[in-house]
Amino acid sequence: MAAARTLRIGLIPGDGIGREVIPAGRRILESLPSSLNLKFSFVDLDAGYETFQKTGTALPDKTVDILKKECDGALFGAVSSPSTKVAGYSSPIVALRKKLDLYANVRPVKTTAGNSNGKPIDLVIVRENTEDLYVKEERTIEGPNGKVAEAIKRISEHASFRISNIAGEIALRRQNIRSASPATSTRDQAMVTITHKSNVLSQTDGLFRETARRALAAEKFSSVFVEEQIVDSMVYKLFRQPEFYDVIVAPNLYGDILSDGAAALVGSLGLVPSANVGDGFAIGEPCHGSAPDIEGQGISNPIATIRSVALMLEFLGEEKAAAQIYAAVDGNLDAAQFLTPDMGGKATTQQVLDDVLKRL
Amino acid sequence: MAAARTLRIGLIPGDGIGREVIPAGRRILESLPSSLNLKFSFVDLDAGYETFQKTGTALPDKTVDILKKECDGALFGAVSSPSTKVAGYSSPIVALRKKLDLYANVRPVKTTAGNSNGKPIDLVIVRENTEDLYVKEERTIEGPNGKVAEAIKRISEHASFRISNIAGEIALRRQNIRSASPATSTRDQAMVTITHKSNVLSQTDGLFRETARRALAAEKFSSVFVEEQIVDSMVYKLFRQPEFYDVIVAPNLYGDILSDGAAALVGSLGLVPSANVGDGFAIGEPCHGSAPDIEGQGISNPIATIRSVALMLEFLGEEKAAAQIYAAVDGNLDAAQFLTPDMGGKATTQQVLDDVLKRL
Ligand SMILES: CC(C)[C@H](C(=O)O)[C@@H](O)C(=O)O
Ligand SMILES: CC(C)[C@H](C(=O)O)[C@@H](O)C(=O)O
Repeated sequence: MAAARTLRIGLIPGDGIGREVIPAGRRILESLPSSLNLKFSFVDLDAGYETFQKTGTALPDKTVDILKKECDGALFGAVSSPSTKVAGYSSPIVALRKKLDLYANVRPVKTTAGNSNGKPIDLVIVRENTEDLYVKEERTIEGPNGKVAEAIKRISEHASFRISNIAGEIALRRQNIRSASPATSTRDQAMVTITHKSNVLSQTDGLFRETARRALAAEKFSSVFVEEQIVDSMVYKLFRQPEFYDVIVAPNLYGDILSDGAAALVGSLGLVPSANVGDGFAIGEPCHGSAPDIEGQGISNPIATIRSVALMLEFLGEEKAAAQIYAAVDGNLDAAQFLTPDMGGKATTQQVLDDVLKRL
Repeated sequence: MAAARTLRIGLIPGDGIGREVIPAGRRILESLPSSLNLKFSFVDLDAGYETFQKTGTALPDKTVDILKKECDGALFGAVSSPSTKVAGYSSPIVALRKKLDLYANVRPVKTTAGNSNGKPIDLVIVRENTEDLYVKEERTIEGPNGKVAEAIKRISEHASFRISNIAGEIALRRQNIRSASPATSTRDQAMVTITHKSNVLSQTDGLFRETARRALAAEKFSSVFVEEQIVDSMVYKLFRQPEFYDVIVAPNLYGDILSDGAAALVGSLGLVPSANVGDGFAIGEPCHGSAPDIEGQGISNPIATIRSVALMLEFLGEEKAAAQIYAAVDGNLDAAQFLTPDMGGKATTQQVLDDVLKRL
C-alpha cells in the first residue's frame, strides 16, 4: 500500500458559531475511513472580530504566513461584523481571499431526495473572489450638498477569464459525475450561465460578459451549453425555476447575493458550503455567518461546514473522500432524524455530527 | 361640483410588449368613474431601442422636453436591450430617471387573498433612482494582463437622505391606510428596513446606512420601527420570511435586484408595478421587460401596467382613484377567471383589461 498522503489543514474558527462548527469539521477529517489512505495534521489560527479587539488586527500576519508556508488547505468558520462602524476593522475573509489569491468562490446548492419541497435543485455558483467592489477602494469628499462617497468596481479580463474557465471545468466535472450514475440524473447537458448587468455597466460588466463568452468558447468546453442572464433577472429565475440551472458564474458581488438567494431555496444557510479556491490551495467555509443569536447554545448546524470540508478536499484532488462525506450528509438529511432547529429539528450540533460520523 | 382636475399624461410604450400594455393603461385612465372628477389628455412619446435604430438616440430630446413642459405624469412600457454591445446605445429609462430627477423608484409587491400560496406579502421596495453604479462613469485601460475596466459607485448624503425620507413617509402612509381598515391588516407597526453592504463598502454603503438612520430618526417617524439588513442576507430573508417586511429602502442596484426577487415571490413579474417619483411628477412603469418571446401574441399581462397607473396617480395626489384601480385588480386576481398565461391562465391582454374595467 502506498504511503498515506498527509495534508496539513489550518483551522480558523473566527467568531460566534464558527467556534462550534469548525471543531465538527476537524472531527470529520480525523474520522475518514483508513481505506482512503489520508492523514491530517492541524494548526489553530486566529482571525476575526475578537482577534481584532484583542490585537488591533482582524487578520494577523502570522495566520497568513502559516497558511502560505505550512498548509495545504484550511477551514474558516465565520466572523462577526461590528454593528456600527469601527475604525481600522475590515473583514479578514475578504483580505484572506486576496492575499492567498483564492480567486474562485465555489458554492454548490443542492437538495437531497428527502430535503426538497418539490423541485430538485443541484446548482453551483462560481463567484469571482478577488475584485469587483471588493477591491474596497473608496473615498469621501465634502460637497456643497453634504458628503459624497465613491467606490471603485474593478473588473479585469484576467480575473474574468480564469473564473469563467474554472466554471467551465466545474461544469465538465459535474457532467462526468452525472455520467457515472445516469439513473439519478435529470440533466442531459452541462450548462454555464453568465451573470452580469452589462445593460447598465457596458464597460465593466460588458468586459466580464465578453471575456466569459470567450473563455467558454474554448474547444474543451464544446459540450457545455453557455447562456447568460442579467443579474436582476437571474435572481427572478433562480426563484422561479432553480431546477433549470447548473453552473452560474458571476462577478464577486452578484455572486455574493446570488449564493444567499440560492441558500434560501434549500431551506437554510446552515446547509450551504463554499470553497475559496486558488491554484493548489482551498479554504472550506460555511456560507452562514457568526449567528450571535444562537451562539453558545450548541445548536448550530454543522452541515455547511462538513460539506465545506468535502468541497475543500475535492479541490485538493481528493474526490473520493469528498464523495463519501457528501453521501454521509445526504444520508443524515434524508433520514431527517437528527436535524438542528434551523431545519425544524431538535438535534444539537453534536448529535448531527455523530449521525454523520456513523454514516461515514 | 368643483371643476374637474385635468392631468396630461405622456405615453411612452417603448419596445416589445410595452406597446401592448401601455394602451391598456390608457384605457384604465379613460374609464375612471366620473365621480372622481378627473380628466386626462394624452401625448404619445418615443423612446427605446427601436427609436435608437431609427434616429440614433434612444431618448429623443423632444420626449424629455414635452414631459418637462406639458405633462403631469407619464406611463413607460419597456425597452429591449440589444443582445450584444451596440455603440452609442444606452438605456432611455435610466437617462429619464436622471433627467427628470425622479429620485425614488417605488415598487410595491403584494399578494391578494386569492393569489398567495400561504404567506400574505405586502411590502414595498423604495429604490434610490439617480446614483450608485447607475451614474455610468466607466473607463477601460489596457494593462499588462489584458483589459481592466472600472466603474464608479457614487453614494451621496443628499440622495440617501431624500430616499430614506420618502421611504419613511411611505411607511406612515401605509400605516394610515391600515388603520382605516384594521380588520384586514396583520401588521401593527410601520417598519423600514435599510439595506446595504457596509461590512465591505464602509464609506459608500456606510454613508447610505448612517444617513438613512439619521433621516428615519426624525420626530415625524417616531412611530416607525427602523431596522437594517446586509444585502445578501436581505435576499435570503426576503425569500424565507417575506411576510415580515413592510418598507425596504435600498441604493439603486440593490433595489433593482431586490425588486425582481420580490416579484418572483408573487408569481410573476407581470404583476409588479413601479413608479419613478420626483417632486410633483411620477412615471408609472411595469417592472417587467419587453419580453420578445411573447411579443405580438396579445397575451402579455396588463396588470403590472394597470397597477403602475394607480401608483402614478397615488403620487400625483389622487389616492382615491388609485384605491379604486387597486380594488378592481384585486377583484380580477381573486376571481382568477381571466388570467394571462404567465399566471397559469389562458386569457388575452384584452380579456384581462375588460375584466378589470368591468370591476372599476
Ligand atoms: C462577511 C462578508 C464580507 C462576506 C462577503 O461578502 O463575501 C460574506 O457575505 C460571504 O458571502 O462570504
Ligand atoms: C432595463 C434596466 C436598465 C432597468 C434597471 O436596471 O433599472 C430595469 O432592470 C429596471 O429595474 O427598471
